[in-house]
Parts: sequence; structure tokens; C-alpha cells
Amino acid sequence: MITKNTTDQVDVLIIGAGPAGLMMAAWMSACGIKTRIVDKRGTKIFNGQADGLQCRTLEIFDSFGFGHRAWRDANHMLEICLWNPNSEGVIQRSDRIADTIPGISHFQQCVLHQGRIERYFLDTISKSGISVERGVMPTKMEFDESLAEEADAYPITITLRHLSEEEATPKQSATSANGAGIEDGLFRSNMAADDTEDIIRKAELNNKANTVEVVKAKYVLGADGAHSWVRNQLGFKLEGESTDYIWGVLDIIPITDFPDIRMRCAIHSASSGSVMVIPRENKLVRLYIQLTTTNAEGGQKFDRSQITPEYILASAQKIMAPYKITYRYCDWWTAYQIGQRVGTNFSTRERIFLAGDAVHTHSPKAGQGMNVSMQDVKAYNLGWKVASVVKGQSDRSILKTYQSERRRIAQDLIDFDHRFSRLFSGRPAKDVMDEEGISMAEFKSAFEKGNLFASGTAVNYGKSIIVVKEGDAAEQGDGSDVATKDKSLQISSKESLATKLTIGMRIPSFKVLNQADARPWQFQELLKSNGTWRVIVFAGNLGSPRQAEKLATIGKSLGGHESFVRRFGPKPNKNETVFEILGVHAGRRQKTTIFDFPEIFRTFDERDGWDYSKILVDDESYHEGHGHLYDNYGIDPEEGCVVVLRPDQYISYIGPVDDYESLDKFFSSFMIVQADP
Amino acid sequence: MITKNTTDQVDVLIIGAGPAGLMMAAWMSACGIKTRIVDKRGTKIFNGQADGLQCRTLEIFDSFGFGHRAWRDANHMLEICLWNPNSEGVIQRSDRIADTIPGISHFQQCVLHQGRIERYFLDTISKSGISVERGVMPTKMEFDESLAEEADAYPITITLRHLSEEEATPKQSATSANGAGIEDGLFRSNMAADDTEDIIRKAELNNKANTVEVVKAKYVLGADGAHSWVRNQLGFKLEGESTDYIWGVLDIIPITDFPDIRMRCAIHSASSGSVMVIPRENKLVRLYIQLTTTNAEGGQKFDRSQITPEYILASAQKIMAPYKITYRYCDWWTAYQIGQRVGTNFSTRERIFLAGDAVHTHSPKAGQGMNVSMQDVKAYNLGWKVASVVKGQSDRSILKTYQSERRRIAQDLIDFDHRFSRLFSGRPAKDVMDEEGISMAEFKSAFEKGNLFASGTAVNYGKSIIVVKEGDAAEQGDGSDVATKDKSLQISSKESLATKLTIGMRIPSFKVLNQADARPWQFQELLKSNGTWRVIVFAGNLGSPRQAEKLATIGKSLGGHESFVRRFGPKPNKNETVFEILGVHAGRRQKTTIFDFPEIFRTFDERDGWDYSKILVDDESYHEGHGHLYDNYGIDPEEGCVVVLRPDQYISYIGPVDDYESLDKFFSSFMIVQADP
Repeated sequence: MITKNTTDQVDVLIIGAGPAGLMMAAWMSACGIKTRIVDKRGTKIFNGQADGLQCRTLEIFDSFGFGHRAWRDANHMLEICLWNPNSEGVIQRSDRIADTIPGISHFQQCVLHQGRIERYFLDTISKSGISVERGVMPTKMEFDESLAEEADAYPITITLRHLSEEEATPKQSATSANGAGIEDGLFRSNMAADDTEDIIRKAELNNKANTVEVVKAKYVLGADGAHSWVRNQLGFKLEGESTDYIWGVLDIIPITDFPDIRMRCAIHSASSGSVMVIPRENKLVRLYIQLTTTNAEGGQKFDRSQITPEYILASAQKIMAPYKITYRYCDWWTAYQIGQRVGTNFSTRERIFLAGDAVHTHSPKAGQGMNVSMQDVKAYNLGWKVASVVKGQSDRSILKTYQSERRRIAQDLIDFDHRFSRLFSGRPAKDVMDEEGISMAEFKSAFEKGNLFASGTAVNYGKSIIVVKEGDAAEQGDGSDVATKDKSLQISSKESLATKLTIGMRIPSFKVLNQADARPWQFQELLKSNGTWRVIVFAGNLGSPRQAEKLATIGKSLGGHESFVRRFGPKPNKNETVFEILGVHAGRRQKTTIFDFPEIFRTFDERDGWDYSKILVDDESYHEGHGHLYDNYGIDPEEGCVVVLRPDQYISYIGPVDDYESLDKFFSSFMIVQADP
Repeated sequence: MITKNTTDQVDVLIIGAGPAGLMMAAWMSACGIKTRIVDKRGTKIFNGQADGLQCRTLEIFDSFGFGHRAWRDANHMLEICLWNPNSEGVIQRSDRIADTIPGISHFQQCVLHQGRIERYFLDTISKSGISVERGVMPTKMEFDESLAEEADAYPITITLRHLSEEEATPKQSATSANGAGIEDGLFRSNMAADDTEDIIRKAELNNKANTVEVVKAKYVLGADGAHSWVRNQLGFKLEGESTDYIWGVLDIIPITDFPDIRMRCAIHSASSGSVMVIPRENKLVRLYIQLTTTNAEGGQKFDRSQITPEYILASAQKIMAPYKITYRYCDWWTAYQIGQRVGTNFSTRERIFLAGDAVHTHSPKAGQGMNVSMQDVKAYNLGWKVASVVKGQSDRSILKTYQSERRRIAQDLIDFDHRFSRLFSGRPAKDVMDEEGISMAEFKSAFEKGNLFASGTAVNYGKSIIVVKEGDAAEQGDGSDVATKDKSLQISSKESLATKLTIGMRIPSFKVLNQADARPWQFQELLKSNGTWRVIVFAGNLGSPRQAEKLATIGKSLGGHESFVRRFGPKPNKNETVFEILGVHAGRRQKTTIFDFPEIFRTFDERDGWDYSKILVDDESYHEGHGHLYDNYGIDPEEGCVVVLRPDQYISYIGPVDDYESLDKFFSSFMIVQADP
């Protein structure tokens, strides 16, 4: 029985509180955007899913302030062991690979229960008063397209229905990533101590049960899963295919004499199929177990209702023989069919966006052990852009880069996934003459390539209004035209000034020291996700008069009355930061003080005095070595450079230290003037 | 009006919930001892004190599971800058020293508000249901000495009175470490968001206001500060002296052109006195400012009522000239007189103990910048011993080592403090002929020595029933006789088997890998404070048949039916761990599996399978280098050794890998048989 109507108005309405929705909410929270996030499920706990956390995902978590929590709680995976049949057909360890390629990130891939990850997000967004409204379901969505390009309009109207507890309680079914629902016979509560608040809130929400409200929003994000209601309303489709490969998943505490059970293992048996071993936290191990040995010729149909944990275990035992494996404790289990699909469109008029499974599904992560967490990273690309537009700092044109940047990545991922699934699900070749079998050398090489892919650090966004690089924007993205339109504002990067940085990629992290207190930081630790653009002046060796002069010159321009820092900076009396100006020099720390830098690098506050946090130095630390930041970025200390970072740490531009004009043009191409000079 | 009486019985009653009391409570919580902790103050918030965290304190926090929280929240101090008058009498930077001596710990000294530190403790003890009862004051204590040596007796009876809110609210006075109370004119609430629970609990406690209860306890800890009620009841005294040196303290956000304001600085002016700069979190800086220039001859009396923040600032300005310093924001201020006192007795019959300021006060920490946190470390020495005795695992004789170990340290510290205070408060010598002045070379050398002292890592406990080393127990301690009485159980260590370890010192930490999953850990991370003794078998190179055989031999003895592990281990059906047996080998990780170790190193559980956490290897990691544990401990991989660690990570014994008999004798000298062989 529906009892009353209310109405509300928000900047951003997020539908779905899984990782993608929460990632969006984290950005909105960090940027102070008026936001609501709703989920039709009554609690955050609904099954035992674990999540692989790729390096880049951990970097992103860190930029929101909770990377260290995930890093502590997760199980770290260090090594991948490849097991293959020997000439007698008995499995043996044939190779070992570093699980994370050494040097690509200061984090390494690890595994953690999804409930914990959601907890970090919930804690983070709660600091700005955002909490997930559970048991709330959209029932109607209207979009007034005529208002799409009016910056301050609320063109979307959504009706939300508050469910009763009964309606909001999820069925205890394990859902695979491609939507095949299979009953999970062993569901148990994995509620953590810190979830009690949720329970309380849930009770409160129930007071609203059966009411309906109408929400007007500037922007809507549909992050409501593979069966996305939002996507269906928009009439968008997922394109792709399923395969006949069926895999089972067991989360167990194994009792086994298999010596590598705490390593990530890819086990290819001679003719019984394959197993992927993923060691988890709390003694758990996840096993991905091939249930059909269907190969390229196609195999018999499989009766999925017959799948039980016992059946899956028996398959694992056959594959892993002569080693023994069994369990007393099973935490969760499921089965799924491998498939990959990607959305045709990621938004309607850059007002209603889709993210996460709503627009992109692939094989369950570790089914091939690597396609981890792409869904949250997608919303990470979108969040700051929407926030910047809602705040009136940036033109709506930057929003088009969401689809051009992420749809391309999704397509690349799926192509790889498709190839990899075939290699992992196929029968190993007996020898080089066995053409129907899979070459184990090819498998290893794909595995290694996939490892880099999976780290998330290889993502390279194409040319656009916010990525100044050579080439064709449409070609480098998903085909959309996202380049700078105004010819007078077109500029060029000089990538040769930082030979080991790549425009369009995230800036890698090394240790660097704060000039004022000599404290070592991972450079990325200083690049919090708070919505600010960063202009990093690598001033080089200040002992050289030429470098000192260039620093003085750029400092004067940046600090000047007509500088873009001022024109596009916050309106007077707005306590916001649009730009952060960082200085990194390569001289001796002990020969330098912050007073050697122009004031724009150490702004003065009447209460707080000088800012000591923005001037850094690439020098030896007392306890944590030397980060060699200039070396690692390929920057010549006798030349230096300026790097512009987007709020998501991707490199927009690299240019000479003293080329103020290019910087001004760059920001002028998409930013909105806040204050007249 | 007193309304009702109740009675209770506990193993341990802790009076006072400052750092020392909380440290004791953390041990009791970790060991599962029935404990109450009371404090007469109504809330934990009472002033703006910051605390220096020495390396060893951070290691201890880490062993309780919250080292990383302190490490993240604190301000890290990296460098000490010494400023002295030049030949014209103008201050200039004369030297720089690493704030923490590189290599002595995997943590470095840092500074953090005491309220945060208490919060970590409160969170930790709450996991076992212990919470501080605030507004509760002891009014009467009776001790039946005739029961002192009866292990299971409750010889102490304490009457507790629950105060009203008014009584429990502390006066807003800043109290110096030596008890001189000076009004703090600028008190402000520094309540953190996570303190709301305290407020709620406080309201609950108030329901008990004006009631009285009687508590019977096996053990009592008086951690009730410099004016300790418990100490007064026992009639014990603090011995020592005050000086005429008066210092002011300002916690401010400085506005200054002094270039080293974010470093720790010791500034000696030519004739205006000295300033110590301690950079803190949240832009704050603490200044310790000498207010009198009294030197060894004695000076004029000082009217302390005249001290105001303005007065203190003016002194700082004179000392720091020609640099300018002022502030808009002052967080807290106080003034104190330097003095050092130590208690004559640390306990009565090892039943009622004293810890923290109750038994040992010195100059406020950074007044000389180093005597940080000794108070909590003292209770850290005591906690596990009491827990072990209460559980019936150890003989009461180990309790005597608390005073012998810690009173000696206190005395050493005070001697140093005395000398250092004189050096820092004195006028710098103009030249070598100026005999009344303080030599700056001597000052620097004292500062460096003090730095090692302050790290807490140099503590070296003397010979005792739990520290098997050469020499005389009474001489190495505070004069008490704490050696093993039973001649037949006396054993010798062979310290030469680990040339860089010192018996009686805490084991230093380096990276080591888990054999089963290749994950790198700081060795100390594996040595949690949970009350277990650790027998670490450094098996050496298992490729050598001799080493492999020795490992097999010791494994058989340790795992045997008559082993001390079994005799002194927990009673059947008690879910406790008394011993942890760790194996660390020096062979190649990839050539080894856990199955190369005897079962005692990888015990089997019917539900959990093999234990993968106890076998470690000193080998190269993929991402965090090589810890070189054997090298750093001075252990020969072709010989190996066994190290016994106390539950507080101090080294009890070093012996040959296969000398089972010495191990058995060692534990037999103080442990109580739980199960007949």
C-alpha cells in the first residue's frame, strides 16, 4: 500500500550501491556534490563474493584515503605457479611468475571480500553525510532532452519506491557476472562487526516502507548491475556472447597436500580440465574449477541443476590428482558460464550514465584470474568530470570523454578475455604435433600479458580535450570526437621532456621528500582524489641559474593577477581548490628552503602561515632510500618540465617549465571563468 | 549521598586510564584476563598533551595491532637541526642529525596527540569487552599480605566510589609532569569524532553516581599519575630533585620566516636561553621555551603567576631573533619546572604494582626532546607477566623481574635526563676559553646519545630467571636477586650463534618471507603481543644434510609427547596458545615447501588443514627486496640456532639448533605443568 508522496532535488542520483555506484558516491563526497545513492537491496550483505584488487584499484582507494585499510585486510598474492601435465600426463609445477609485475606500482594485486571493500566506501562517504538508502527502487524515469545542454537544469525525474523489508531482502542466490542465477546451497552471514550501523539504518528506512517519492536530478548514474533497470529504460543493449564453458567456484578452507595452495595457481590437467587457485584471507582459498571439457569443436549440453559443491569438488580432485584436496568448511559456492558483453552506449546526452556491470560484463574475475575490478575503475573515470561540471568549473564537453576513454578499454579487455578463456578452458597440447591442444607456452605468454592488463596501470587514454597528445582522437578512443574544437586553443605536449612518462597514462609513484620536513612520501600519496587539477613544476636543479630563473618566471605567471589559476579558480569566498601547484626540485634538500620558491608554491594564510606541503625534492631520505623521481620519470634536472595531472592522476600535458601560455590555453579550452581578472 | 553497595571480584584491577594503565589493560585484553580499569576523571579529554612516540613504542603498538594507525596519524620527525650562536652571537644552523638513528627500527620517532593514542588503546581493549570506567575513584585499599604467595587468592580489597559528573569533571589546568599545576588560559575541546561513544558511556555511568562498591582483586596496578593515590596508600616515595629551570610550552600554528620550523630544532641563543621546536600534526608546532636563564650558580626566584602565553612567546622571539615568529592560533600552553624523580619500590609483594608517573617522573618529554613514552613501556614489561601468572602458566617468581628490569632503566634515564637538562638550559660557551658556558660539541654528542636512549631500542634487561645471560643478576638489575634458584635447571646461552643479537634486548626487525605464499613481512609483525612464548628455530640452509638432520631432531623433540611444549602447554580443551614454534630457514624458497619441515612447525587441524603461517624463509622478495635476516642477526646458515623470545619480544636465550635439553630446562625453571606426559 503506497501512502504518501514527497519530492526532492539533487545534483546526482546514483542507482545501485555496488562498487561502481559507491565509487561514484566517493567522488561526489570528495567534491561536495549534493548526492543520493539508492539500492533496492535491503542490506549490503548478499553473498560471499571476493574481489581481486588490482594495483591501480588500490592506488585509487589510496587516493580516497582507504588504500591502507584494503592493503592490511586483503590477502596478498605474490606468485603465480603454473602446473601442467608432464610427459606421463601427471601435473607438475612448470613455471613461476611474479603475480604483480615488479615495479609497475607501489601496490600489488590482492584479494578481499567485497563486503569489506564496500565498508571502506561507506565509511568514506559518510564523512560528508552521504549514506546508502537501501530498500529503495526506481520505478519511473523521465528525461527532458530539451534541457540536456542547460548546465543548471534538472532534466531527469525519477520516481523512487521505498520497499518493505520483505521486498528488499535479496534471495540467497549466487549470481554470476553474466546473469545466470544458480542456487547457492551454503549461504551464511558474513556480517562483520562494523555492519551493525547498517542494520540500525535499515530499521529506520523501514519507516518509509511503501512510500513513493519523486526526485529531480541534474545527473543520474545507473550502476544497477547486469540486469540494469536504468539501461533497460534507456533501451540500450549489451553486445557480446556466451560460451559453453561452465565453471564452478568453491570458497573453502582446503585440507590438502598440494604444496602451492597459498599461491595463485593455474592448473591444466591432461584431460580433466583446469583449476585456478586463488588464496584468500582467513585461510580461505577460492577454486575456479572447469566443469566441462568442451573444446573448440563444441561439446554435449550440461545439466546445470546437477551442480552441487560435491560435484564441483570431485572435478577439482580429478584435475589436481595425484594431490588430495577436500574440505570441512565451505564459505560459499557457485557456478557460471563464461561470456563477455559490453554496452553500446555509456550515456544518454551525457546526463544519464551507465557504469559497472550495467554496461560491461565479462568472465568472473579470476575465472581467468585477472579481469578484476574494471567496473569500479569505470566510475572513477566519470565521477570527477560530473563533479566539475556540476560545480560550474568545467564545460559539459569533458563528459564525452567518459565513453571515449572507457568504452575503448572495455572492448580491449573483452577481446583479451575471450582469447584467454579459450586458452585456459582448452586441453593442453601433448606435444608440438598436437594441433588441437593448447600450447602451454602460448598460455604462459597470454598469462603474462594478461597480468599487465589486469594491473590496470597500462591504461592509456586517447587524445581529447583533456589529454594533449598527438594523433587522432576518434581513433584513439571509441570513435567519438572528443578533441578541442577551438583551433586557437590547441596546444602540443613535449613528451620528450619526461621520457618515461606517457600522456594519457596515470602518473607512476616513487618516493619524494617534502622540502620543509624531509619526510618521504610516495608521490601518489600527495595526489588525493579531491577534484583538483594539479600543475606540477619539475623545476630541476635550482643550483643552475637557468633553472632558478625559469622557476621564477613560471612562478610569476602562475601567481599573476591574470593567471588561469585565478580566472578559473574558485569564486571569492568559496572554500574550494580548483588547482594545486606543486614544485619538485632536484637539488640538494639541505641547500634549499621553501623560501627559494615563488609564493604560488607556498601560499600564505593569515592564520596558518606559509603552506609547507607543496614543495618537494628528489633527494636521499634517512630511512627509505632515494626515490630517483627525476630518473624514473625521465626528466633532465638541467631542463625540467611542467606536468598537468587530471584530478584522477592521468597525465594531460607535458611541456617546458616556462611555457605558461600553453597551460593557459589548455585550461581555457574547457574551463569556465569564475572571476574576472 | 551514597546509596548502595555492590561487590565484585576480578583478576586485575587497574587504577588510572592514562597510557600506563591502558597499556596494562591492552595486555590483559590480549591474554583474556578478567580485568577492570577505572579512572576518576569523567572523560578521557582533559588537555592538549602531545606525546612523542619512540621507535620501540611504535613497535609495541604494532604488536597490539594499532602501530599503523599511530604511524599514519602522527607527524613524522626526520631531522634535528641544531642552531647555535655564531661568532657575532647570531643564531645559525650549525648541524643536522637524523632524528631517528637509521637502521635501529622499522619505525621512526614521531609525535601525536595523547587523545588519539588513548583512542587506539580503547578500541583495542573493547574487542575483549574491557572499557574504562570513568568517574570512579578508589577510597580504601586493604591488602592481606598473608595471602600474597597463594596463587589463586584475592588478597586485595578496594572500595570504589562512583563520582557524580561534577566531581568527575577535571579542572582545566595544565599539569606538568612533575606535578606543578599551572592554569591553562586557552583550554579548548579537542574532542575527536570518535569520542562520542565516551560521552554516551559517561552518561550511563552517571546512573551509578554516588554509589560505592567493593572489589576483590588478585592484582592491582596503580597507574594513577604523579600524585598516585595507590602509591600514597603504600607509603612509597618518589626520590629525586627539582631544578630552578623553568620552561614554557606553546602549541601554536606558527607564522614565521624561520626556515626549519617543520624540523625538530634545538636552538641555543647567545644569552637569551634555548628553544626546542617539535613539529606536530595539523600544522601545529610545539615550542619548549626556556623562561629563566638560571645557570649552575643558581638564579633569582621567578614569579610563576606572571607566566602567560604572551610572556612565553616574547621569550621565544628573543631567542629566535633575527627570525620572526608569532601566531594567530594557540592550541594549548603550559609551563613547568624541570625535575626527575623515581620510586623506591615498584610493588608490594608483587601483588600491588605501580607504573607510569606514579613511580617515575622526569622532565616533560621534549623539554629535552627525548624522554618519550617511558611510562607506557614500563607497564608493557609488567602486563604479560601478570597475565601468565594469573593463568597459572608461570610461577610468581617471574614478577620480581618487573622491578629489577624497569627500575634500572628508570634510574639510567634520569641520570641522563639530569645531565642533558643542564646542557640544554645552560648558556652556550663563547669559545673554548669560556669555561662557564656549555660546549656545543658536548651538547651535540649528548643529543646523539640521547637519541639512541630515546629510541627505546637500546634497553638491555639483565640476567634473570627469564633472561639467560652471563654475569650477576643483582648487578645487572636494580639489586634484587632474580636469577634461577634451582641449580639443576641453570643453563647457558650461546650468544655467539647470533653475533648481532643481544640477549636481554628486543629482537630487531627485518623483512622475511612466508614459505607458503612468498609474502614479505617485517619479522616483528609476526610477533604479536598475545602472551605466547616463541621458540624460533633458525634452521639454516636445509640443502645441507647436517642442517636438515638437526631440524628433524629438534622437530621430533619439540613435537614429542614429553616435550615442554606439551607439559606447559594449555590444558586439554583450553583454546590457548602458550608456545609458538617458528621455523626460519635460509635456503631457496622455491626449492622448499612446508612439507620439508617437521609437523610441529605446521600443525594440522581437522577443520583448517595445515598451518601455513609458521614457516619462514630468508630470501629475496618480488617487490620488497631481501631482508637478509640471517646476516642482520649474525647467524651462520651452516650452523643455525634457536632463539627464545619472551611474550614482549625480548630475547631470553640463544642456543644450538639441536639442544632440546636446555630449552626444556629453561621453561621448567618457571613454568607450571598443565598436562601430565
